[in-house]
Amino acid sequence: MPASPLVDAAPRIDALVDALAGSHPEIEVRRPGAETAAYALDAGTRREIVGAGPAVAFPADAQQVQRVVRAAAAAGVAVVPRGAGSGLSGGARADAAQLVLSTERLTRVIEVSPGDEVAVVEPGVVNADLNAVLAPHGLFYAPDPASYAISSIGGNIATNAGGLRCAKYGVTRESVLALDVVLADGSLVSVGHRSIKGVTGYDLVSLLVGSEGTLGIVVAATVRVRPLPVARRTVTAFFPSTAEGAEALGAITRTRVRPSVVEFLDEPSLDSIDRHSGTSLRARGASLVLVELDGFGIDEQTAELSEALIAAGGAVRTESDADGAVLWELRRSGRGIDEGEWFLGGDVAVPKSRLPEVYAAFAGIARRHDVRIAAVAHAGDGNLHPSVTRTIPEGGDPAHPDPALHEALEDIARLALSLGGTVTGEHGIGSVKRELAALELSDRVIDAHRAVKDALDPQGLLNPGKAY
Amino acid sequence: MPASPLVDAAPRIDALVDALAGSHPEIEVRRPGAETAAYALDAGTRREIVGAGPAVAFPADAQQVQRVVRAAAAAGVAVVPRGAGSGLSGGARADAAQLVLSTERLTRVIEVSPGDEVAVVEPGVVNADLNAVLAPHGLFYAPDPASYAISSIGGNIATNAGGLRCAKYGVTRESVLALDVVLADGSLVSVGHRSIKGVTGYDLVSLLVGSEGTLGIVVAATVRVRPLPVARRTVTAFFPSTAEGAEALGAITRTRVRPSVVEFLDEPSLDSIDRHSGTSLRARGASLVLVELDGFGIDEQTAELSEALIAAGGAVRTESDADGAVLWELRRSGRGIDEGEWFLGGDVAVPKSRLPEVYAAFAGIARRHDVRIAAVAHAGDGNLHPSVTRTIPEGGDPAHPDPALHEALEDIARLALSLGGTVTGEHGIGSVKRELAALELSDRVIDAHRAVKDALDPQGLLNPGKAY
Repeated sequence: MPASPLVDAAPRIDALVDALAGSHPEIEVRRPGAETAAYALDAGTRREIVGAGPAVAFPADAQQVQRVVRAAAAAGVAVVPRGAGSGLSGGARADAAQLVLSTERLTRVIEVSPGDEVAVVEPGVVNADLNAVLAPHGLFYAPDPASYAISSIGGNIATNAGGLRCAKYGVTRESVLALDVVLADGSLVSVGHRSIKGVTGYDLVSLLVGSEGTLGIVVAATVRVRPLPVARRTVTAFFPSTAEGAEALGAITRTRVRPSVVEFLDEPSLDSIDRHSGTSLRARGASLVLVELDGFGIDEQTAELSEALIAAGGAVRTESDADGAVLWELRRSGRGIDEGEWFLGGDVAVPKSRLPEVYAAFAGIARRHDVRIAAVAHAGDGNLHPSVTRTIPEGGDPAHPDPALHEALEDIARLALSLGGTVTGEHGIGSVKRELAALELSDRVIDAHRAVKDALDPQGLLNPGKAY
Repeated sequence: MPASPLVDAAPRIDALVDALAGSHPEIEVRRPGAETAAYALDAGTRREIVGAGPAVAFPADAQQVQRVVRAAAAAGVAVVPRGAGSGLSGGARADAAQLVLSTERLTRVIEVSPGDEVAVVEPGVVNADLNAVLAPHGLFYAPDPASYAISSIGGNIATNAGGLRCAKYGVTRESVLALDVVLADGSLVSVGHRSIKGVTGYDLVSLLVGSEGTLGIVVAATVRVRPLPVARRTVTAFFPSTAEGAEALGAITRTRVRPSVVEFLDEPSLDSIDRHSGTSLRARGASLVLVELDGFGIDEQTAELSEALIAAGGAVRTESDADGAVLWELRRSGRGIDEGEWFLGGDVAVPKSRLPEVYAAFAGIARRHDVRIAAVAHAGDGNLHPSVTRTIPEGGDPAHPDPALHEALEDIARLALSLGGTVTGEHGIGSVKRELAALELSDRVIDAHRAVKDALDPQGLLNPGKAY
């Protein structure tokens, strides 16, 4: 596949666009240019500087996806599948020598089946839009990445997106039963099954979920949906310090309660919310364990959980529905990036009992690299998102954080690995975390990745240079 | 790999056993012979007639597994990994030209971590033994194939075993976080992670789970464990006919209750239990929906579920713990095979709303092939196990059921496919269901399987001819 300099790619891209326009005028294809620049980047790479954007195809059904892939294969042009572009690891990063295949026209909710507890959707359906369609049926789609209002199901599948409710309901993979996929040779295949169980052949559905568009392009997904719980309740526990709050997480594990969400916000995260949202959470404590319970026996659950958190030293309160809603909104979007600061975000996960050690290590890492570190955690599954910041010095370039910020994030990733964790809990490897992936995966395992990739995409056509 | 007649294999097997004995005397290896005959078959192929059994190696740790695999690769002898031999699809079927690699000496529970909610086990640990170790910690390992008392975790992983509690807790795949695996080249790799979340690279754990030992040999598994529920309760609902009971399953789906187990027993299954166990279930009704509820709010759950089942026409009762235990034991092992009958068992799954159509179709299929059909269903996930029987005629061979029985099972599999289901819900393809797999998987998808197999096992060394 094209390893040639970008300058050589232009004629090949032109020929591909011409060929598609000639043979398949029903497919909208935009030529490379300034107006496609947004398609070169995703939310994880948006600070990068690009010149002209890539060519972009907008197929409107599975057959059009096949035609685009076949034409690109014939022209020797790599294809970068793109959902909503909300990914945080550069999975949809494209250069001018590549063709972006956008799924934004594939937005049909094909079917909702309450009896089978499934929905069948095209990849461009936005996560929140699917839930809006499901709600009148008394159903919901569980995976809830923080980007649920803007991210697409196809992108969620490509990254095996996580979210807040994963500890109880699983990540995206646990909610995907079957996929229609266009492979690198342009063939359209169905894998998986609409039944909840099934073990015919290899689990190619799970192999495709999280493969970041490198093994195939999802054109339809059969996802599992669930009845909306009979009750939901928010419980808060504030602690006098970050360390005490982090320690208390283990007390939840020792109960029989498995909340739908357990979030942990450390002292600097609470400070950031107060600063950006005008709240006064810090007046209640220095760290916050924010819990959502759901399902039957909500009073019993609340009692067992509260007792454990009080015993662990927390100031525990069952919130009203209104206050709970405010707290969840603050958790999701209450923090902000301060003017005049460099900011880099991370996404590591550790075995859940090790979370206190991660928080305890931040002070040393921050000192070593002269940065500030804050972190919120999806504590129920050990996934946390550190924010590394530093005041931009006189004359510093806001678009180019000092290398020290990257080094601090890498130290946090190494720490997670040393505790038995992983360098990415839910955002994926994409284009920006390949060096971190190499810290985690052994050479032999990377060889195995390459062999699987070559097996399904021998030409290296689909999203080369991503995912591992 | 050896496609040569078995008669040619003997010298190669002898040379392999000699080589292992010479270089690695610490590894017990048995030569082919009558006393290894049991290692040629599993529970799904035990009626087959074999002459001498295969050579069998009994490695006792991961390094010994590597040595056996490397020696076999050097000798050009295929390796058949074997757990407890309780599989129902011939996944552990071996012939005299192959080397069986038994994991029965790999039986250590390496670690139980309540704080991380994981256990680390060797593959030879029996499912029930793991739960016995976990119980004092207040924990359990959820996947519960009917064979839990005899099947090993390694075999459960190889087949992605299901069980009764899958609708709520997922199949084996949902409980496997990380694997140590010996690949076909003898290398030992770790895939997955101990954290509950993690998306670094392709999901090779899920690819290996259910791959029936064709892609690697598991030597250690990190599995997810859960707190024992605060309560469990058994609810029964008897219906006047099989059809009415099957229809009532949809009423459960329309509640917000998601039981840990929903089993459905049709009229002939109840008859079989009464006949073999001396019970009188048929006096209570012609079909039975047998439910286990667990968790918080058990009274609320019971009330909502009972109301729905009563509205659907059921005679509903909350069973005492003692009666519940008897009923679950009858469900698991109360039926029997009648003297003088041919018997074949199936394992299809359909989208759960289609279960009534499956039961409704049995009469026609039975008539067409002059057989009797009964079926119990894991109704919560659409998986059902039809039993096809016929009285053996004068002079008939008990070991060779009439082809009509196979044809009836194939008709049931085709029916499941026509309803959007699968030819195997939880038993796997093994050696005995490859023709059925070919009904389900398209040629292009089978090609993809072959490509993945070749990518990870180019020599075709590991359990050739299984899984797809």
